[in-house]
Amino acid sequence: MYRTKTCGELRIGNLGQKVTLAGWVQRSRKLGGMTFIDLRDRYGITQLVVEADADPELVATATSLGREFVIQVVGEVLERQSKNPKMPTGDIEIKVESINILNKSVTPPFTIEDDTDGGEDIRAKYRYLDLRRAPLRKALELRHRIAHEVRNYLDSQNFMEIETPYLIKSTPEGARDFVVPSRMNPGQFYALPQSPQTFKQLLMVAGYDRYFQIVRCFRDEDLRADRQPEFTQIDCEMSFVEQEDVLETFEGMMRTLFKNVLDVDVPNPLPRMSWYDAMDSYGSDKPDIRFDMRLHEVTSLAQGHGFGVFDSVPYVGAIAVPGAAGWSRKETDALTDWVKRPQVGAKGLVYIKLNEDGSVKSSVDKFYSTEDLKAIADAAGASVGDLVLILCGEKRKTQTQLGVLRVELGNRLGLRDPKVFAPLWIVDFPLLEWDDETQRFYAMHHPFTAPKPEHLDLFYSDRKEDLEKVCANAYDFVLNGNELGGGSIRIHDAQMQKRMFEVLGIGEEEADYKFGFIINAFKFGAPPHGGLAFGFDRVCALFGGQDSIRDYIAFPKNNQGRDVMIDSPSEIDDIQLEELQIKLDTKAE
Amino acid sequence: MYRTKTCGELRIGNLGQKVTLAGWVQRSRKLGGMTFIDLRDRYGITQLVVEADADPELVATATSLGREFVIQVVGEVLERQSKNPKMPTGDIEIKVESINILNKSVTPPFTIEDDTDGGEDIRAKYRYLDLRRAPLRKALELRHRIAHEVRNYLDSQNFMEIETPYLIKSTPEGARDFVVPSRMNPGQFYALPQSPQTFKQLLMVAGYDRYFQIVRCFRDEDLRADRQPEFTQIDCEMSFVEQEDVLETFEGMMRTLFKNVLDVDVPNPLPRMSWYDAMDSYGSDKPDIRFDMRLHEVTSLAQGHGFGVFDSVPYVGAIAVPGAAGWSRKETDALTDWVKRPQVGAKGLVYIKLNEDGSVKSSVDKFYSTEDLKAIADAAGASVGDLVLILCGEKRKTQTQLGVLRVELGNRLGLRDPKVFAPLWIVDFPLLEWDDETQRFYAMHHPFTAPKPEHLDLFYSDRKEDLEKVCANAYDFVLNGNELGGGSIRIHDAQMQKRMFEVLGIGEEEADYKFGFIINAFKFGAPPHGGLAFGFDRVCALFGGQDSIRDYIAFPKNNQGRDVMIDSPSEIDDIQLEELQIKLDTKAE
Repeated sequence: MYRTKTCGELRIGNLGQKVTLAGWVQRSRKLGGMTFIDLRDRYGITQLVVEADADPELVATATSLGREFVIQVVGEVLERQSKNPKMPTGDIEIKVESINILNKSVTPPFTIEDDTDGGEDIRAKYRYLDLRRAPLRKALELRHRIAHEVRNYLDSQNFMEIETPYLIKSTPEGARDFVVPSRMNPGQFYALPQSPQTFKQLLMVAGYDRYFQIVRCFRDEDLRADRQPEFTQIDCEMSFVEQEDVLETFEGMMRTLFKNVLDVDVPNPLPRMSWYDAMDSYGSDKPDIRFDMRLHEVTSLAQGHGFGVFDSVPYVGAIAVPGAAGWSRKETDALTDWVKRPQVGAKGLVYIKLNEDGSVKSSVDKFYSTEDLKAIADAAGASVGDLVLILCGEKRKTQTQLGVLRVELGNRLGLRDPKVFAPLWIVDFPLLEWDDETQRFYAMHHPFTAPKPEHLDLFYSDRKEDLEKVCANAYDFVLNGNELGGGSIRIHDAQMQKRMFEVLGIGEEEADYKFGFIINAFKFGAPPHGGLAFGFDRVCALFGGQDSIRDYIAFPKNNQGRDVMIDSPSEIDDIQLEELQIKLDTKAE
Repeated sequence: MYRTKTCGELRIGNLGQKVTLAGWVQRSRKLGGMTFIDLRDRYGITQLVVEADADPELVATATSLGREFVIQVVGEVLERQSKNPKMPTGDIEIKVESINILNKSVTPPFTIEDDTDGGEDIRAKYRYLDLRRAPLRKALELRHRIAHEVRNYLDSQNFMEIETPYLIKSTPEGARDFVVPSRMNPGQFYALPQSPQTFKQLLMVAGYDRYFQIVRCFRDEDLRADRQPEFTQIDCEMSFVEQEDVLETFEGMMRTLFKNVLDVDVPNPLPRMSWYDAMDSYGSDKPDIRFDMRLHEVTSLAQGHGFGVFDSVPYVGAIAVPGAAGWSRKETDALTDWVKRPQVGAKGLVYIKLNEDGSVKSSVDKFYSTEDLKAIADAAGASVGDLVLILCGEKRKTQTQLGVLRVELGNRLGLRDPKVFAPLWIVDFPLLEWDDETQRFYAMHHPFTAPKPEHLDLFYSDRKEDLEKVCANAYDFVLNGNELGGGSIRIHDAQMQKRMFEVLGIGEEEADYKFGFIINAFKFGAPPHGGLAFGFDRVCALFGGQDSIRDYIAFPKNNQGRDVMIDSPSEIDDIQLEELQIKLDTKAE
């Protein structure tokens, strides 16, 4: 071992000890002939001192050290003159007796500091240097800790971690698969799994009762911001359970994580909200309930006053922005522009200001009396000093726009503290979504999700209105406006599955082609079962108080799906192509 | 929840309790009007009884149950008349009050019993049914337990589990890569990792100090028996360590596994053997030391007696097979045929029998006196009653043949009890292997493996004889004749790396092309580091007392790299090919 202690562990209790440390030179400075060096390793930073009257060779070596040199030092633990209470090792320093340069370093292209001067591109290219910075190290330490806690919890609940294959079969459903040409089976391909869904259900058929896996998944999507072509899931499935059992088990897991990793107590039980309530009150199926500012329908109050825009739509909804009555015309105009951007898509924005002096000001003054406006503001839950913002149009679309506006205002008003955690379950999702264009139903989750037992009459009805009302035994775990996980109770009954395909307009032949393998497996005694999956990267990021998952992945890819550090993907040899019996067919740009 | 208890937990202490169980019908039989049903779940088997005088509908339901039906039963825990001491639940049975058929099953294509009547192919196709059998369930439970213990141990030793990417870059070294065409970067490919070697060394450069990962690796090889195209490694790396630190750390890990998983105490410290001793004494770099039967060189005793075969070779070696002097001529002839098979490749086999009556019989009687033969037998460590077997030829090749013969004889004599565990370290591997054909050295491990510090003079020598003597800081963990893991201390010094490339005849340009990326990363302050990787599938199989890894993988592939259950690999859509901008170029057979 090149060291007797790490750079993070020496305290006042170690005074007088002779120690050997090894690590990287964070910085060094001369002060009155003395050389101070901050030595860094994964565990912390320890200050080294080379005295002015030390052996000249030692002084020369100390002086020669550059940033990020790797050194080994022997010295004595002394009490510091000026202590640094911000550092765990801030009470001590090492009086250096010898320095052994283990490796030199060329000057790194950016500073290895919490706030670095490196741009995103250069840091991505030198990811192994970026990873030296404390924020990234802490992110990966957090990730390790969460994974370890997840495994301990699930093991304690009798879950078995079972590895499922990565070289599987391309499926005609869902997002695009990454495929892998098989050299031994020319013309054939493996696919990388988008999730182990089929395998975990097979494991339930096989009687494994409680399965989990922290597992890589792959999706060949056109990447949106903060999506990765490979990502990690906490994937789980249980047998002989109903929805309540799944929710309790994984609520327990998340509660354990909050407590053991963050020392945060979350409500017990966690709040649950129906999908309908979430849409009506928050305009989102992943509501951020850290702040209120709920949506309120004001359709009946808003209509019948001659304002054609409101009169011609099925839904008028409002939110009350606390304390924002004083916002200037310029600010409300900017907000109007903001909601009209294609990303939000509203046609316009109506406001009502409940001024502190009791007066009421609105952008639609000429259609409404002060009393009318006050009634609307009242219905929106506004008080004096608040600003009421109103959107209108098709119901769910408008609610979604209001939901986006609400989150934006939450950000602007500082109501979304990343250190505050407000988890909840969203339940009672609709089982089916009607598509006007193709005039048929689609499964909101997937075609194996079970309807709620109490909705079976509706499920077997032939009326579209009944089918639209069927709720699924499906659930999402939502934290601070993010869906962290979701799942469902699966259909295990052949008759019910047949009905599901019928409702979805999937013929027997198509069902057989698309799902034949799993349907066949289910004939051999499938138990009632259900499960869910958590987005592990996202769990880590939110626990770390960050929006982006990128820093919680050791070696992420950029938005073009490239790893710029290793320069991948890249061209391969003609010999490799020949062995795989494939040819490039690259189109001219 | 569909149950209040599992099928594995009821004991005499539960008598009189009303319970609900759910599981699969293992078997059912009628006996004097009563119906006995064995109900199975992951946790065990519980006997159910439907009395002859029970409700006729209940009796009818019980009678209707087929094998592998999924049922839920309510009943009372009673003491059994005839207890079954072989079953943990053998003291009790359930007097059934109601049966709810949760799912029927068609008749499975083979019996779900410890010893099944299903052949390998049919079991592979219905893997989800094969997995219901107790031996496979126990194999996967063992795998889960070992993974969990590994993680707990390494976490306790400050190792961080860090996930490395699966979509990486194809490298020109080593075995064949599986590649993944990139749709977003037409004409370019990712590669699936053969191991995270580069990334774990980068993590050391990044200061992560102690890394591990239980990680899938991929190798597109022509499959030999018991190799899988995807396999799992326990991959580890440490900084600021010397070989001794790595050995101690992972010896600790393996000792913990043996104790916590198998309750087996292994020697502390574990035996260590140099590669030279292993070859000389066992004819293998992964010696099975559960039994002795060592190799002994008898060259000088064997030569000079006019037997041209021995006189013309550089090496004559012998093993003494205990108690085998009485083997018939037919048996020794069969052994001779066995060693002459191409898999072993010996030219012939000479024997000496030390008969119980004191006489000596040999296949080369006419060249050697009884005293000569006794001297050779003595040197081979033989006693009266033993059979001495002798091979000759080029030294290492002959030792290897003797090693293979030794293991075969160990099998035949029952000396290789899979419940006996004899782990050891093999150390002091040669750094370099000379290749006569290309007249150059190759790295025995890989070009980043460090020479032993005490051999640096030899390493910088220009004499071939010196370089051949250089030992590497490399080590293998061997158990019962299998290499379970191996690794090395890496070169972190640029000058030493340069010398290594020079010794290997790798020019600067070639080094830059093949290893430029990692060499560049090392310029920014690489710490001294080293590590190793264990073959996790093999660890599980050996801990389970099995030779084959296949039952320790939930969904393995066959020797053609196919998953016959899901029928993968398979053809993909023309649309997919078009999107990937590749074309099939399948050659006619």
